[in-house]
Amino acid sequence: MDLLSVHLDKTIDTPLYEQLYEFIKQEIIQERLPYGQKLPSKRKLANHLEVSQNTVETAFEQLIAEGYLTSRPRMGFYVLAHGDLEFVEHASAPEKQISKADEEPSILFDFSPNKIDTEAFPFSVWRSLNRQVIDESHHDLLLLGDGQGDRQLRAAIAHYVYHARGIDCDPDTIVVGAGIEVLMQQLLSLLPRSTIFGIEDPGYQLMVKLITHFGFLGRPLDMNEEGVSIEAVRLLEPDYIYVTPSNHFPYGTVTSINRRSQLLQWANEGEDRYIIEDDYDSEFRYTGKTIPPMKKMDASGHVIYLGSFSKSLIPSLRISYMILPKKLLEQYRNRLTFQQSTVSRIDQHILARFIQTGHFEKHLNRMRKIYRRKFEFIHQLFEPYKPSIQLLGEQSGLHVVCEVRNGLTEKEILRRAEQERIKLYPISYYASKNVIVSHPQFVIGFAGMREEEIEEAVKHVITIFQL
Amino acid sequence: MDLLSVHLDKTIDTPLYEQLYEFIKQEIIQERLPYGQKLPSKRKLANHLEVSQNTVETAFEQLIAEGYLTSRPRMGFYVLAHGDLEFVEHASAPEKQISKADEEPSILFDFSPNKIDTEAFPFSVWRSLNRQVIDESHHDLLLLGDGQGDRQLRAAIAHYVYHARGIDCDPDTIVVGAGIEVLMQQLLSLLPRSTIFGIEDPGYQLMVKLITHFGFLGRPLDMNEEGVSIEAVRLLEPDYIYVTPSNHFPYGTVTSINRRSQLLQWANEGEDRYIIEDDYDSEFRYTGKTIPPMKKMDASGHVIYLGSFSKSLIPSLRISYMILPKKLLEQYRNRLTFQQSTVSRIDQHILARFIQTGHFEKHLNRMRKIYRRKFEFIHQLFEPYKPSIQLLGEQSGLHVVCEVRNGLTEKEILRRAEQERIKLYPISYYASKNVIVSHPQFVIGFAGMREEEIEEAVKHVITIFQL
Repeated sequence: MDLLSVHLDKTIDTPLYEQLYEFIKQEIIQERLPYGQKLPSKRKLANHLEVSQNTVETAFEQLIAEGYLTSRPRMGFYVLAHGDLEFVEHASAPEKQISKADEEPSILFDFSPNKIDTEAFPFSVWRSLNRQVIDESHHDLLLLGDGQGDRQLRAAIAHYVYHARGIDCDPDTIVVGAGIEVLMQQLLSLLPRSTIFGIEDPGYQLMVKLITHFGFLGRPLDMNEEGVSIEAVRLLEPDYIYVTPSNHFPYGTVTSINRRSQLLQWANEGEDRYIIEDDYDSEFRYTGKTIPPMKKMDASGHVIYLGSFSKSLIPSLRISYMILPKKLLEQYRNRLTFQQSTVSRIDQHILARFIQTGHFEKHLNRMRKIYRRKFEFIHQLFEPYKPSIQLLGEQSGLHVVCEVRNGLTEKEILRRAEQERIKLYPISYYASKNVIVSHPQFVIGFAGMREEEIEEAVKHVITIFQL
Repeated sequence: MDLLSVHLDKTIDTPLYEQLYEFIKQEIIQERLPYGQKLPSKRKLANHLEVSQNTVETAFEQLIAEGYLTSRPRMGFYVLAHGDLEFVEHASAPEKQISKADEEPSILFDFSPNKIDTEAFPFSVWRSLNRQVIDESHHDLLLLGDGQGDRQLRAAIAHYVYHARGIDCDPDTIVVGAGIEVLMQQLLSLLPRSTIFGIEDPGYQLMVKLITHFGFLGRPLDMNEEGVSIEAVRLLEPDYIYVTPSNHFPYGTVTSINRRSQLLQWANEGEDRYIIEDDYDSEFRYTGKTIPPMKKMDASGHVIYLGSFSKSLIPSLRISYMILPKKLLEQYRNRLTFQQSTVSRIDQHILARFIQTGHFEKHLNRMRKIYRRKFEFIHQLFEPYKPSIQLLGEQSGLHVVCEVRNGLTEKEILRRAEQERIKLYPISYYASKNVIVSHPQFVIGFAGMREEEIEEAVKHVITIFQL
């Protein structure tokens, strides 16, 4: 190394040791300092550069740590790096070219069934619970908790499902996760690759995508007025079926008691047959009592119950849960030992308090009233256009299905909707090609709109639906 | 149905319609009302029971919804349920017997390397950011956001990795997730089953478990003083290697610049070869500059960078991220379309603000000082026992490795530690059987203890380590 060529600038911000480090590193990368070359001693270099020996030492230490130099005891410092350093110190090529797809042209009205009413969210209660939980006295909540979710939240969920859905479960059978998809991925990871899934058709297409993405066979099961067809189940011989018995997506059909019994019978015939019951939107039923879940009838442990706070509270919170039958729970515990909880522990305790203090129940009652009013309002708005425009489905949920019986095709309606910047969700989005409907149908989500918006949106959509 | 046998009690809380519903349901379940049986008209039943017709109607509607009855237009109401109802209405057998394993006997000192100092967490800043984000003006944050994580957080992370780690990446290449395990599961789901992983040995055993749990071959790669052995990589011919180049777990070895170059060279030789760089604990280096990550040298897109806020902030927050090379990012976007973000959107925005407002940097500087003091303290405590008890490893991280060179075996030391209720983590926990150390070694995590505790704990552990 040509010691004379080092120039350290004491007037700039960069520390001297860092300037020296950078200089020597570049000399090595440029191969001006070859492999094996001995460096001058720290003292000598310090004297020459008129810096403290400490400065040289710090620079050398960093170069040693990064593997450019090595120190041999009582021998001195040698260049360690050699060979092909072509990948080193290229500024990493930022992949700026990858940007997200351009946003769609601005939408006037979006009938997505995945929205909720955000105006009634109890912000102040939530803030106050945050303030209580994020507190110096809760140091322990900063560390990792239980992989299945903290006991407090699981106990609160057990309490809730008992009182709201009649399910008597031990909190230890509950797994909390960051969304139904995360829980399903955990469940799928426990199953043999040959597992076959039967899925309601029409139904929740995300589940079909998820199951097939993870390499499992997911086949559609026909629906009839009593729920998923038992003949279709018997014909397919699946290991697992995915159903929404209390409120079929998207029609709202309630699976009849007979059909439930037949499905449970089917599951009980095989040791490893399971029913995945997604108790989706069950909170929002506007007439009579809520429909009891199948899990309530599951005496022999063949029902996996999925619940979520996405619709009942807020989707962006990402908290869902599953209740596992004993056999699967044991597998979960024995095999998913690496799995930490996927939900912030602070959020878990906030939600647990929200449930325990009765705020959740209050919120649900309030939302039920709000959604019922919107539901009735939308029915009223469509009423004059019967029977050529007809609403289908049960007295429940956050969307209706609208059937257009005047000869217009789905394609034509979608073309018109796009022109008018209205986002419509045809039933074909939610079904395999097997499902044939005689008239075009659309899922009309109303939960996220205010009444004035609903009125305006329906006015627009009716002109689109009319000949 | 024997109408005379219905008894509705007007003095109790249960609504009349619910009593009637329950009565009819039980009649059907007990098969006293057989399949196909016609029920009396609503009017007739209402008169007989001296209740309003509305009460009967509500009860019938619920029974219809649940599939016990059917209504035939202009004909009346008929029993629909029949056949084998044996699974119905059993109280679900609560699986109370499944309780978690009993807690271990109370531990006096736990040297887990997974703890952090929780006393220095900026509770009041965090609370105040919570208050700002959970606000009526942020309705939109209640709805689902971007599956990769909200842009604001990704931009804040991009800013952070640029300034702290020198990585220049587009925020669109970042995926935010609820922990490294969740992100790894997403990544694994994109790979063919035949993908072979090479993993540093000793190393992060959770990763080995995770990779093998998801059905992939994960093989150990020997380590030497320059990092993971390039000969071992060449011999195994893996598709992916998992490495911790800036701070090897658990020894703290820094992968030399040569080895980095060789590894990048290896990756560049195959189109689908990738280096998973877990930049674990890189924030906590106590001498010199931080070690630059390999991602910084990754000009050709073969490095997947994993980062986490578990150690640098708090583990219970469950926020980690990965920076994907272009090709994998495209696969992620095209194939994981069902994947919603696994992190609460409110938490994402709180963290984004924490970073953007400089609080994160301030926190890191503060923690670096605290941990350095503890690190130096622990070295000082062990100093008098050299060379029979020796600390290994770099000037970094939240743990040290302690080697006991006096002939005591690992087994004997663990037996003593258990007796003294001290939780020790031998190196064998973190290694495959291939790894042979000549003297027993233990990972000594110190981050979660106060200095007085460290002093006390080390005093105990030294008596255990001595002949």
